[in-house]
Amino acid sequence: MTVATQIVLAKRPAGDVTSDCFRAEKVTLPALGDGQLLIRSRFLSLDPYMRPRMTELRSYTPPFELDKPLTGGSVGEVVESRNPRFAKGDTVIGMMNWASHTLHDGKGLRKIDPTIAPLSAHLGVLGMPSFTAWYGITHICKPKAGETAFVSAATGAVGQVAGQLARLAGARVVGCAGDEEKCTWAVREAAYDACFNHRAERDAGAVLDKLCPQGIDSDFENVGGPIFHAVFERLNNFGRVAFCGAISEYQDKEPIAGPPKMFTIVQRRLTIQGFIVSDHVALMGEFTAEVGGLLKAGQLKSRETVVDGLGKAPQAFMGLLKGENFGKLVVKVS
Amino acid sequence: MTVATQIVLAKRPAGDVTSDCFRAEKVTLPALGDGQLLIRSRFLSLDPYMRPRMTELRSYTPPFELDKPLTGGSVGEVVESRNPRFAKGDTVIGMMNWASHTLHDGKGLRKIDPTIAPLSAHLGVLGMPSFTAWYGITHICKPKAGETAFVSAATGAVGQVAGQLARLAGARVVGCAGDEEKCTWAVREAAYDACFNHRAERDAGAVLDKLCPQGIDSDFENVGGPIFHAVFERLNNFGRVAFCGAISEYQDKEPIAGPPKMFTIVQRRLTIQGFIVSDHVALMGEFTAEVGGLLKAGQLKSRETVVDGLGKAPQAFMGLLKGENFGKLVVKVS
Repeated sequence: MTVATQIVLAKRPAGDVTSDCFRAEKVTLPALGDGQLLIRSRFLSLDPYMRPRMTELRSYTPPFELDKPLTGGSVGEVVESRNPRFAKGDTVIGMMNWASHTLHDGKGLRKIDPTIAPLSAHLGVLGMPSFTAWYGITHICKPKAGETAFVSAATGAVGQVAGQLARLAGARVVGCAGDEEKCTWAVREAAYDACFNHRAERDAGAVLDKLCPQGIDSDFENVGGPIFHAVFERLNNFGRVAFCGAISEYQDKEPIAGPPKMFTIVQRRLTIQGFIVSDHVALMGEFTAEVGGLLKAGQLKSRETVVDGLGKAPQAFMGLLKGENFGKLVVKVS
Repeated sequence: MTVATQIVLAKRPAGDVTSDCFRAEKVTLPALGDGQLLIRSRFLSLDPYMRPRMTELRSYTPPFELDKPLTGGSVGEVVESRNPRFAKGDTVIGMMNWASHTLHDGKGLRKIDPTIAPLSAHLGVLGMPSFTAWYGITHICKPKAGETAFVSAATGAVGQVAGQLARLAGARVVGCAGDEEKCTWAVREAAYDACFNHRAERDAGAVLDKLCPQGIDSDFENVGGPIFHAVFERLNNFGRVAFCGAISEYQDKEPIAGPPKMFTIVQRRLTIQGFIVSDHVALMGEFTAEVGGLLKAGQLKSRETVVDGLGKAPQAFMGLLKGENFGKLVVKVS
């Protein structure tokens, strides 16, 4: 009998997520059924897309259920298995509960080699956020030499990889982030040509005019809202927007309007394309070969914030939605 | 010496185009230079894209010049030629002045066979508006059986062809137009499954819910504004928007906001693509073969409004921007 500590959705947020949306519980897990396995979580990934799942918004993933554990991409160790694909001691990655232990049916789970990289890297620069960046850059933004690529949330788990991939493709890369330290890191470590602190700048348009004097050819968009509007206004003919997320909209009670002058889309022959990386798992091998190679060659920097202890997950997640993390945010569960 | 009657841009409109934006003049044209030809206009096409050209908006075509003749796609007859590519008596199509006669350098001009169709058809169902519809439908909207395709401005020069092409591709086609007569024509003649009068409906969303119970898979967008917002909200996963124009925005002094909840683009993996058909002239042969074939086979209906006399062009153009025309609007110049 395993007693698991887990965090459940206590209530749906209206606007900002607050700590009373979460409740920590202890539950005694039942014995394993056929095909099931018991996983002890090692690292839990916290990602902005979880916010829309907390409300009943029609989204690409079903909403979290009230009074059930929240779930997230995690790395863990198999403690016990009645599933022929997994054995005790395997290190696995997949969706698990925000919990010390998860009873799992094995769906969507895969084994990883724990020796090739720190475990948390499989949730970041080797994992879903990095795959997201790679897909958006290589299939939608398609930056090239002579162009200017913009990345909102420049140092986020996704943005930091997107920016570096755009730079490696030869484009001039400009981003924005939420404090000076992040901006400095973006330029010094992540090869951005320029990065501005969007909290310090009242007029994003004026800064963009200065930093992107030739306009913007591609935008890797994770934020939405006023900065997106300013970018949209400055897109060049045949500009591309890889729309990956809109964190600025997630906590607003009133819907935020889209950018004015939609006719701009016609005038400049823009393509704005939304995508969700889970639609493209068939390309995972290609991504792993390419980005794994860049990592090995030392051509890709990454930064993460590790929070120690499952109990701190709610607070860390609330901070993530306010941009308090630096790089990929993971929780060290055990 | 030829005396031409022409209409010049007397002032730039602010908001609605008014009759004092135009001025009719008589000018004596100079003798032909080398490479020039003199064309007598037969038909002048009036199109919504001319409105953005009247202001100094950064657009895909340069703005019209003050005190110079307005220009537009036209069919005319060569009266005199010092250009080896054209001879007296040729029927030609291309950009000409809003004028009885145009002194032309031959650029972008091509000969047409005046016997294959009424001359005005070369400006409509055999011409640029139809090519625009064909490009947007075949390259962006890509409607297919089992899907719902929406066409705003269902009976306009472009929309009427877009709707029929979507229907021929097997989709269920829904549109909107500005009066009951147009809606009736759309359904009876142009094979729309349904068409609603957007001036009679206060709540476009509710009508769309009724007419598109399975949501909308593709949108051929010519209008923008509130109806586009309602369509956007109802786009299905992997929905496509061919953004061709935004007539609702052209006369507004204050920029109209885009649709709320841009995150929808991510959630539903939408592609919103603006295009201008002149970027795709390389496909003109393919278009002509396909749409010409449909016309010959009687599979494509078209409707036009012919206004008699160049002097009525300003009034007709002001009406076009208010949706007063029915189908392709042309002026019979002589």
